[in-house]
Amino acid sequence: MSQKQADKKRPDESFGITVSKDENFPQWYQEVVLKSEMVEYYQEISGFFILRPLSMFIWNQIKQWFQERLDEMDVEEASFPTFLSAKSIEKEKDHVEGFAPELAWVTKAGSKELETPIAVRPTSEAIIYPYYSKWLRSHRDLPLRLNQWNSVIRWEAKQTTPFLRTREFLWQEGHTAHLTEEDAGKEVREILELYAQIYEHLLAVPVVRGRKTEHEKFAGAYYTTTVEGYIPANGRGIQGATSHCLGQNFSKIFDISVEDPTGNGHIHVWQNSWAFSSRVLGVMVMIHGDDKGLVLPPRVAQIQTVIVPVGVKKSTSPEEKQIFFGQIEGIAKKLKLAGVRVWIDDRDGYTPAWKFNAWELKGVPLRIEFGPRDAAGGVISYCRRDNSEKGTIPIDNISAEIPELLEAIQKSMYDRADASYRQHRIQVWKWEDVLPALDEKNVLLIPFCLEKHCEEKIKELTTRQDDTSHIPEERRPPTMGMKSLCIPFEQPGGSGHSTKCLRPECGKMALKWTMFGRSY
Amino acid sequence: MSQKQADKKRPDESFGITVSKDENFPQWYQEVVLKSEMVEYYQEISGFFILRPLSMFIWNQIKQWFQERLDEMDVEEASFPTFLSAKSIEKEKDHVEGFAPELAWVTKAGSKELETPIAVRPTSEAIIYPYYSKWLRSHRDLPLRLNQWNSVIRWEAKQTTPFLRTREFLWQEGHTAHLTEEDAGKEVREILELYAQIYEHLLAVPVVRGRKTEHEKFAGAYYTTTVEGYIPANGRGIQGATSHCLGQNFSKIFDISVEDPTGNGHIHVWQNSWAFSSRVLGVMVMIHGDDKGLVLPPRVAQIQTVIVPVGVKKSTSPEEKQIFFGQIEGIAKKLKLAGVRVWIDDRDGYTPAWKFNAWELKGVPLRIEFGPRDAAGGVISYCRRDNSEKGTIPIDNISAEIPELLEAIQKSMYDRADASYRQHRIQVWKWEDVLPALDEKNVLLIPFCLEKHCEEKIKELTTRQDDTSHIPEERRPPTMGMKSLCIPFEQPGGSGHSTKCLRPECGKMALKWTMFGRSY
Repeated sequence: MSQKQADKKRPDESFGITVSKDENFPQWYQEVVLKSEMVEYYQEISGFFILRPLSMFIWNQIKQWFQERLDEMDVEEASFPTFLSAKSIEKEKDHVEGFAPELAWVTKAGSKELETPIAVRPTSEAIIYPYYSKWLRSHRDLPLRLNQWNSVIRWEAKQTTPFLRTREFLWQEGHTAHLTEEDAGKEVREILELYAQIYEHLLAVPVVRGRKTEHEKFAGAYYTTTVEGYIPANGRGIQGATSHCLGQNFSKIFDISVEDPTGNGHIHVWQNSWAFSSRVLGVMVMIHGDDKGLVLPPRVAQIQTVIVPVGVKKSTSPEEKQIFFGQIEGIAKKLKLAGVRVWIDDRDGYTPAWKFNAWELKGVPLRIEFGPRDAAGGVISYCRRDNSEKGTIPIDNISAEIPELLEAIQKSMYDRADASYRQHRIQVWKWEDVLPALDEKNVLLIPFCLEKHCEEKIKELTTRQDDTSHIPEERRPPTMGMKSLCIPFEQPGGSGHSTKCLRPECGKMALKWTMFGRSY
Repeated sequence: MSQKQADKKRPDESFGITVSKDENFPQWYQEVVLKSEMVEYYQEISGFFILRPLSMFIWNQIKQWFQERLDEMDVEEASFPTFLSAKSIEKEKDHVEGFAPELAWVTKAGSKELETPIAVRPTSEAIIYPYYSKWLRSHRDLPLRLNQWNSVIRWEAKQTTPFLRTREFLWQEGHTAHLTEEDAGKEVREILELYAQIYEHLLAVPVVRGRKTEHEKFAGAYYTTTVEGYIPANGRGIQGATSHCLGQNFSKIFDISVEDPTGNGHIHVWQNSWAFSSRVLGVMVMIHGDDKGLVLPPRVAQIQTVIVPVGVKKSTSPEEKQIFFGQIEGIAKKLKLAGVRVWIDDRDGYTPAWKFNAWELKGVPLRIEFGPRDAAGGVISYCRRDNSEKGTIPIDNISAEIPELLEAIQKSMYDRADASYRQHRIQVWKWEDVLPALDEKNVLLIPFCLEKHCEEKIKELTTRQDDTSHIPEERRPPTMGMKSLCIPFEQPGGSGHSTKCLRPECGKMALKWTMFGRSY
C-alpha cells in the first residue's frame, strides 16, 4: 500500500461528514464523533465506546475545573470498590429496583463459580453507605463529604449512543452526610450551580436549573435538582446533571446516625448524592457541531489555534523556506506565551485545503493561515470555526488579540445556543397547542398540578397514535410522548397556580409552571 | 451513647498500634493502614479495600507528578472499556494464560444470561491492541502513545494485603507503539526512571533499577525492566513497578503494522506497556512506619504540619484566648503563604497529649506545639515525626525554616531507608552462605547463569524443608525460597561472568550478578 493510499485510508481524515445535521441528525452525530476521533466503537461488546485523546482532554479540563471547586469546599476524594454484593443490594429495594434490569453480574472468578454473585456498580450508594454508618459517630464528624471519579456500568437495553447512552460511562459521584436538612439543601444547590457552570462557562451550553417532579426524581431521593439542556436539531430536552437530596431515606435504611448535639438520643443524618458524567461531551457536540464536523468551545479545546502554512511552492528556495518557517515558529511561540494552545500543521504531503478540512472536522476553534503574502504584510490571516468569519491581525498584536478572539468565539457560541433555547422554550396555555408546539421542536412550559398519574396521562396523550410508517424515516414526525424535564426555579411570568392544570381532564389547580418535552 | 463514649469509639483514634513492627510485622501493618484511616476493609467482598482520603491524597500527588511528565512526553490519555470479550482473550494465549486464573467473569446482565461471557480487565493489552491495528496506517502515525488511569481486577487466590496484593487496584497503564526497537527501548528506560523517581523523590523509598530474568519477565514481553524495593522488617524484596518492551510479539498477533518508510512492504511496530499501581502506597507505609503508626514523607503528606495549641487552661480568660488563637491563626497563615500544607487542631474536648498521639498515628511529618510560653518567647516548638527530634524556631523565621525542615525530614527518611537497603543488599560468593544471609533479612547479589530451570532449582533449594512448626509463628524462620528480583543495571564490583553460576550443580558460567531474595 503506497503512502498516498495509506493516507487516503486514514480513518480520521478520509472523508468529511456525509450527511447534513438537519437532514439526518442521528447519522450526522455518529459520523462527527467517529471521524473527529472523539470516540471509537468497541466492536467486541456492543454499547461500549473508546474515548480517544480528543475526548479525554476535554473531560480532564472539566474534571480539573470541578475538582478545584471541590477542594475549596473541603470535599475529599475516596475510592470504593467496583463491586456490590447481592446482600447490600437486598438492603435498598426502592433504590435498587430502578437499576436491577441494568446490573452486570460477575458469577465466576478464574474457573470457580462465586458462592454469591456480585454486581458491577451502576452507582455506589449501596456500596458506600454501610461505611458512613460505621464511620459516623459524633455530630463533630459532620459534614462527611466524599467524592470519587470512576466509571459505572448500566446494561442499557435501549439503543446506545456515544456519550449520551452507553453501557459504561465516566462520572464523578459525590456522597455527603449533614446534620440538618438545611445544610444538605444548601450543598445540593451549590453543586447544581457548579454543574450549570460546567455547561455554560466551559462548554458554552445553556441549561435550565430546576427540580424534578416526583415522577422523575432519582429512585430513593427526597428530591432531585437538575440542569436541563436542549438539542435544537431535534427539539429534545436532555438531562444535563443531577444533584439529589436523599433526605433521611438512606440513613434510616443503613442506620447512619449521630448523637443529637442537644443530647436527645440520635439523629439520622441528611444525605446528598450528586453526579455528572461524560454525557456532557455529547451534549456539547450535538449543540455546536455543524455540517463540517465538530465545533469546540475554545476554553476546553485541546488545540485552540492551528497554524497552517500556505503558499509554499516547490520553487521556494530552502533559504526562503527556513526563514518562512522560522517566522511561523515565532508566531507559535508568542501565542504559547500568551497562554494559547497552539499547533503548527507543517506535515508534508497534504495540501492546505486538505488540512483546513481536517481541522474543521476536528472542531479547532481558530485557524491561522500564514503565507508569504501575510509575512510581507506582517500579519496573520485567520478563520473562525464557529461562523467562518475571516480576518487578519498584525503579528505585533496577536498576543493580545488572539486570546480575545478565542473568548469572543466562546461567547458567541454560548449566545447562539442560548438564543435558540429561549426561542424554543415556550409557554403553552392551551392543550390543543401542545402537539404542534412539540412538532415545531419546542420544549414547553405548562401549568401543571405536579401529580404523578397526571404526568403519566400527559405522556400517553402526547404519544402519537396515527400510523406514520408511510413517511420516510428521517422525515417521520416523532411518536414520542412528552415527559416533565423539570420545574424551573425561575418561574415564567403569568402565575401557573392561578390557572388549572393544562390537561383538560385533570381539573386540579396548577401548582407550578413545569417544563415538558420530548427528551433523551 | 454519650459524647465521651462516642469519641472513645472513634475508630481512627481510639487506640494506638497494639503490636511492635519488629514483633509482628503483618499485624502491625494491618493496624497502621486501618487505624491511620488510609484504608477500610470492604466486608462485603473479601480481598477488596476502600481507599480513604488520606490514601487518595497521596495517590493524587503521585498521579499529578507523573501526568505532568507524560504531558511533556506527548503521551496522550484515553479510556478503553472495562471488559474483555472471550474472543479477544483467545487471541493472546501466552499473555492471557498468566491472567486466566484471576479473571472475573460477567455472565449475566439484568435477568438475561450473556451469549458469551466477558471478563473484567486484569490489564488492557488485549482490549487496546486491536484498535492500534485499526488506527495505525502510516509510519507518520508513529509513535502512538496512550495512557489510561483506571482500576483493574485480578482475583487473587493468595491471601490479600492492603495495597500490596488486592483483588482490585488503581493504576496507570501506558501502551505505546514505535517504528524501531531503539525508539521503544529508549522510552522503556525513560518511563522506568520516572517510576524510580516516584519512589525515591516523592516517597523517600530507594529502589534498584534492573531487568527481569526470562523466568520473571511479563507474560508476552520481549523484556521487562523493573524497580525493586526492599522491606527491612522482613528482609523481603518487592517489585515496585515495571516497564515492558513487548517487542513485536503483540504486533504480530494483532497485526499492528505500518508500511516501511523505505517502501519495502510492511513493518510490525515495536510496542511497550508500562504501569505502576497503588501498591506504591503500601511500600511507603512498610518502610517508613514505626510503632506509633504512619510516617509520611512531607512531599506527599496531605497535612505536612499540624499546629496543636497547648497550655490553655480553664482559667485563661476569653480575651487571652482570643489573642492566643489569633497568634496561631497568624502562624498558620504565614506557613500557608510559604506553601506549607498546615492544619490547626483546635478541637475541644481532646487533651494535647491525645492529639499528639492521633497525629503521630496519621504520620503527620511535623507537629508544631504552641502555648503561652512559646508566645511569650516569640517562638514555636516543634517535634519531628520521623525521629522525634524537638526544637524551637523564632516565629519570624518559620516561613523559611519550616519548609527547609520538611525537606530535611524528606531527605533523612530517604537516607535512612537507603542505608538499610545498601546494608542488606549483599554479594554472595558461596552457596552455603545463601540461606543464612536470607535469614538475616538480606537480599542477595549472586553470580547467575540466567537460565530458567536453574532459577527454578534455586527456588527449590532455598525453600526450607525442616519442620519448624514447634516455633511460635511470629518467630518462625520463613520457609519461602528465594527468587530473582532483577539483574541490576548497575553491576557490583567483582565481575560475575568470570566466575561460575552460584548453584553448585549448575556448572555454567555466570553471566550477570543477579539480585535474589524472598519477596512479595
